Amino acid sequence: MKKCLITGASGFVGRHLLQYFDRVAAGITEVLGVDLYPAPLTFVPQQFSYRFEQIDLTQLESFTELAKEFDPDWLIHLAGESSVAASWRDPDRCIMNNGNIISNMLRFLKLRPMKHRLKCRMLAVGSSEVYGEYLEPFEESHPRQPYNPYAISRLYQEDRIQLDVKWQSLNIVSTRSFNHTGPGQNDRFVIASFVRQLCSAKKNGQKSVCLKTGNVQLIRDFSDVRDVVRAYHLLLEHGRNGEIYNVCCGAGVSLFKIIEMLQEILNLEVTVEPDQVLVRSGEPPIVIGNTEKIFRATGWKPQIPLEQTLRDMVQEQMEQNLKK
Amino acid sequence: MKKCLITGASGFVGRHLLQYFDRVAAGITEVLGVDLYPAPLTFVPQQFSYRFEQIDLTQLESFTELAKEFDPDWLIHLAGESSVAASWRDPDRCIMNNGNIISNMLRFLKLRPMKHRLKCRMLAVGSSEVYGEYLEPFEESHPRQPYNPYAISRLYQEDRIQLDVKWQSLNIVSTRSFNHTGPGQNDRFVIASFVRQLCSAKKNGQKSVCLKTGNVQLIRDFSDVRDVVRAYHLLLEHGRNGEIYNVCCGAGVSLFKIIEMLQEILNLEVTVEPDQVLVRSGEPPIVIGNTEKIFRATGWKPQIPLEQTLRDMVQEQMEQNLKK
Repeated sequence: MKKCLITGASGFVGRHLLQYFDRVAAGITEVLGVDLYPAPLTFVPQQFSYRFEQIDLTQLESFTELAKEFDPDWLIHLAGESSVAASWRDPDRCIMNNGNIISNMLRFLKLRPMKHRLKCRMLAVGSSEVYGEYLEPFEESHPRQPYNPYAISRLYQEDRIQLDVKWQSLNIVSTRSFNHTGPGQNDRFVIASFVRQLCSAKKNGQKSVCLKTGNVQLIRDFSDVRDVVRAYHLLLEHGRNGEIYNVCCGAGVSLFKIIEMLQEILNLEVTVEPDQVLVRSGEPPIVIGNTEKIFRATGWKPQIPLEQTLRDMVQEQMEQNLKK
Repeated sequence: MKKCLITGASGFVGRHLLQYFDRVAAGITEVLGVDLYPAPLTFVPQQFSYRFEQIDLTQLESFTELAKEFDPDWLIHLAGESSVAASWRDPDRCIMNNGNIISNMLRFLKLRPMKHRLKCRMLAVGSSEVYGEYLEPFEESHPRQPYNPYAISRLYQEDRIQLDVKWQSLNIVSTRSFNHTGPGQNDRFVIASFVRQLCSAKKNGQKSVCLKTGNVQLIRDFSDVRDVVRAYHLLLEHGRNGEIYNVCCGAGVSLFKIIEMLQEILNLEVTVEPDQVLVRSGEPPIVIGNTEKIFRATGWKPQIPLEQTLRDMVQEQMEQNLKK
């Protein structure tokens, strides 16, 4: 019988998390979703009552008032700027924005008297970007070396949390989430952009298509968002207070390989045209995480193969095209 | 023939740096000192013309206007909250304040066109606090693990700088400065506090004194501030762009040993009375830095033995007492 507050509830991961909670019986009776933008649910929750509030989390008072009244058992913090590209366009904005938001979350948690603080557990979603330019499969003990403003904002989040777990008796589990994708992702992210471009060609009856891409040699560790939200739930249940867990597959795939897979799914001839605008400087060639820690703590392993994720994304996109 | 802008010019280190620049011929012709608080110079500079402006460095416009007009070759950034204790009293304030200030410094440096940015070199003074709780003599490659809000603010400074050196062609040398002391230090810092208490007893004609202290077992790596400002000058001359250097002695001494040395200098019987208010939780028992990197880059080695530093501090304090 838990009450759950989700920040960033309108986002890609937020919407999948709500669906997941409604599918599994997670013992959640009430959910309060908050976000800067509204996004009406596309389903009627059966397992919990749902309420949404549109608020700006950088505003301390409006958030704490709402959260205090709701009094959550779980606070799942998904909100914040999450695009590396956007963080380059305005570094200070990204860092200050994400910094203010995490600071407000922590202030809310510290409103309670010390001895009652463990009662509310926060899951703070962070990013593999904090690792920076390394090439090995990262364990969590790896030194952090943030190479973009977004990464700095997440590193700052980790450190602020560490402090308040240690000295303020807060109860927080953190993630370093690696790339994830799936149906519903915004096409400013790479795989969703491939899928949109290719499905649109398919719908136009083209047999071949020229895909504008950045560097397709990049190797990344992609998970399905539906596996990721399951990991978040398991970490809330079984993660250790103050610990940080990689959320990833532990295996890498190149963007080129993903294009090949989409080509086969869609039965399209795809040629790749590098677009310098899409090549971001300083992107590490290989990012792969180590999955041992989360597996030991929660038994979590990703279940949905990338092939399936891509098929589901294609299906969603083709259906959307048909509806238009 | 250099123009030098010093932030935090009214502080302990700022005042010693001005004296140092006036003693050595550092090729500096003009100095602009800025600080939130005024502190009239106690000497007339012979080597350079000096101008002071009282400004709040968190205000972007007033700083950039002033700095742009002055057009420094060297920007020596000493300003910011520097007390761990104060950062505990208001963590957000310390982090936001130091964060805003460094962000404004970097914005100023990025006002120039890319190709002219190397011309102005910044020395960014940071802190050994970023290392956190480790026990060995730290090399700069050591993982960072900040354990207080002040440390987070300095880690954030390092990372913001790293980014702008890498992507924005800035020219910045950073330090991780370990403990330093010397004449003129505010007695909210430990050695200055010991000296003040003991000198005041001596002046009252006491033969013995009971000293209120925190944990005197703590071992720290203390340098004389006059050696430290010399290191800063050498780093401006010879440090490598984008690199971070420990500024320390490479040897540790316990606070208890320091009390023994002061006892001998002052010929006083000192007993130590632990005061729980002064014992800060989470202070690492031993902090000692490794000096190799700065030595290789600049040839810098500390020259003033701690014994001499303490004698000079005692002398200053006794003279002040006499003047009253």
